[in-house]
Amino acid sequence: MATAERNRSAERIERDIETLAGPEYTLSDEAIRRYAYTDVYRRTLDYFTRELESLGFEVEEDAVGTLVARNRPEGEPVFGVGSHCDSNRNGGKYDGTMGVVTALEVCRLNAARALDLPLQLISFLEEEGSGFGQMLLGSRIIAQRVTEEELRERFRSLDDGRSFWECAADAGYQPVRWRECAHVLDDLTGWIEMHIEQARVLQDTGNRIGLVTAIAGYVHADVVVHGRGDHAGATPMDFRLDPTLPLAETIVELERLAREAGQGTVGTIGEIEVDPGIINAIAARVRFSLDIRGPVEDAYRGVARDIAAFAQQAAEQRGMTAEYRERQTLPATPMDERIVAALEAAAQATGEPFMRMHSGAAHDTMCVADRVPTAMVFVPCVEGISHHPAEDASPADAALAAEIILEAIRALT
Amino acid sequence: MATAERNRSAERIERDIETLAGPEYTLSDEAIRRYAYTDVYRRTLDYFTRELESLGFEVEEDAVGTLVARNRPEGEPVFGVGSHCDSNRNGGKYDGTMGVVTALEVCRLNAARALDLPLQLISFLEEEGSGFGQMLLGSRIIAQRVTEEELRERFRSLDDGRSFWECAADAGYQPVRWRECAHVLDDLTGWIEMHIEQARVLQDTGNRIGLVTAIAGYVHADVVVHGRGDHAGATPMDFRLDPTLPLAETIVELERLAREAGQGTVGTIGEIEVDPGIINAIAARVRFSLDIRGPVEDAYRGVARDIAAFAQQAAEQRGMTAEYRERQTLPATPMDERIVAALEAAAQATGEPFMRMHSGAAHDTMCVADRVPTAMVFVPCVEGISHHPAEDASPADAALAAEIILEAIRALT
Repeated sequence: MATAERNRSAERIERDIETLAGPEYTLSDEAIRRYAYTDVYRRTLDYFTRELESLGFEVEEDAVGTLVARNRPEGEPVFGVGSHCDSNRNGGKYDGTMGVVTALEVCRLNAARALDLPLQLISFLEEEGSGFGQMLLGSRIIAQRVTEEELRERFRSLDDGRSFWECAADAGYQPVRWRECAHVLDDLTGWIEMHIEQARVLQDTGNRIGLVTAIAGYVHADVVVHGRGDHAGATPMDFRLDPTLPLAETIVELERLAREAGQGTVGTIGEIEVDPGIINAIAARVRFSLDIRGPVEDAYRGVARDIAAFAQQAAEQRGMTAEYRERQTLPATPMDERIVAALEAAAQATGEPFMRMHSGAAHDTMCVADRVPTAMVFVPCVEGISHHPAEDASPADAALAAEIILEAIRALT
Repeated sequence: MATAERNRSAERIERDIETLAGPEYTLSDEAIRRYAYTDVYRRTLDYFTRELESLGFEVEEDAVGTLVARNRPEGEPVFGVGSHCDSNRNGGKYDGTMGVVTALEVCRLNAARALDLPLQLISFLEEEGSGFGQMLLGSRIIAQRVTEEELRERFRSLDDGRSFWECAADAGYQPVRWRECAHVLDDLTGWIEMHIEQARVLQDTGNRIGLVTAIAGYVHADVVVHGRGDHAGATPMDFRLDPTLPLAETIVELERLAREAGQGTVGTIGEIEVDPGIINAIAARVRFSLDIRGPVEDAYRGVARDIAAFAQQAAEQRGMTAEYRERQTLPATPMDERIVAALEAAAQATGEPFMRMHSGAAHDTMCVADRVPTAMVFVPCVEGISHHPAEDASPADAALAAEIILEAIRALT
């Protein structure tokens, strides 16, 4: 593709991104804050609808509000592209939205070059969970990974406590037909989502494109160490049961275990809660979270198993006890090698630097992968900053991604 | 002293303690909650006043409310005994109050045995800081370790935000005369405070009496480690600046340094604050507190210096930075060896098990020691539990302490 065409792509992508960062499209003037059933979210869907209709796409929304646009009648095979256009509450311009914008650019290039590839663009509802505290909600509804009771009762608006069901109905949707959302994927022969990387691997390795080979699975868990709350001044070192010591040893060991496991395994202790948490008291109890992930099931699950045992042993060696409780686990999602290979060939043809990598973050594509061969394309984001107003990414990289995705789909269909 | 007399002492002490744990003397029905200028505190002072007046003592309160009772006219030398009778907000029956009750018992025994020793009992105002968030407030006013601006403006009621000055005036005191409180110590030839230990050393070593040789000094400080907040899933282990690692290494090193320093040095990390503190984010920043104490100045200050350097180095080795900031320091307070020796001789004479030890906790006696030779006597508290409704101590041990204190004063005057 000529440099001039790629520059025009980048300009269109930049215009879309900047438009959707305007005051009509965000609830906050200090961040992008956009989620389901708000006016700003409605206007965002309307923007994509107008752009896609101008390309001849038929645009509709599923029973709860996921946007689906196709250039073929229902029942005919199509190749899927898209992402999500909601943000976290203190978000930036790129997470999600740049993926939908890039998918739109794929549709534009398809029209501009008169390729007439069969395409379906999807913009999933509520990926970030800003509306109801539920991540990947639109794609989980499509994958039927929710229950009706959750939608009717358990999932509630973070703003006013009303149920998801009530909010969806008030916005003009038909939540009672939520099971029909599964049909969104019926005609897909493949799926490619573009997203910003949300980390610094591409930036720091000088690559413009990441081809995702797997999305990491994870274990989310808590460890509680029970010590004995004593006076920090009056209790000699030999008389203590201080639960911050097993905590400290576990932090160090988790780093060692994750490095030893390799294969993209990572482990993080992001929450630490000390009870009572005052300067002159030895803690009675410490709770900390574990976030252990990786694209290789055996590797990250092994780390989770080992660190749980280690924490218990570290506590026992000091005369304390520790409990390990899993909050949530999600298996790793391998991408489809045929699609990854097509993307790789297309990336190779551009002459631009790219790499294979896995995604440590979760994405809607995890829910698509149940039924459809999928892949993802990452572009760098500056300093790895994401979920923050300072989030930054390059329209030129997104234009490169659009070109690679289009060429891969052309090769695959 | 005959067992029968000591048993009667224990009975009187128990009666006092149980009376002052009744509903008229606490704001809470689940804990002892008693602090300056409340009705329950007023009634507690009235109780001691009645008991002391019945022994022929003249009782007054200083310009802000510290109770002072003497069996000699002003200007004549007296030996001081006492403690404080306020509690922390979720307190037990013994911390402070048992010390005043035991001092009262010393006065009773002095009368019963017609020894006519010159005594002055003091019950200091606001040792726990429950009223205004200021520990040792009454004794600091007496030691003139406060400023008028603090009393007038900065120290404010935790209940309603009014200044200490206004609250004291409303309770009928004359805060404008606060400098005169210094005279409370003018006639003292010595001072002995009895207190529960607030730790488990006496219990676990099988001693009934602790003779305090020094009150620990301390360094209170904060360390902030600046890392880089990244996505917990998307950021490989080699790309992280995770401030929980220097935290962990510092926790482990502080334990090592405190043990190595010995001589009663202790070190505690009681507060840990992780920012942002969510399961799927590598922390951007960790703040933690340091509480480092000991009776030997060089030892505990050395640990504070070493751990500050260690934390900075641990952060730097991982490409991060750490700041160390002192909040407050207080020098160690040695007790007067002549008084300690007199207490030791008296303890020896009882045949009961006792030990020399230091106090890790701060006490009003630290403020008395500026001007008067002082000592303290500890009695065991069950499981070291203090500042809690479950606090428990033995009236028989307090009776033993009263006997030892009385005999020591007799030997000293």
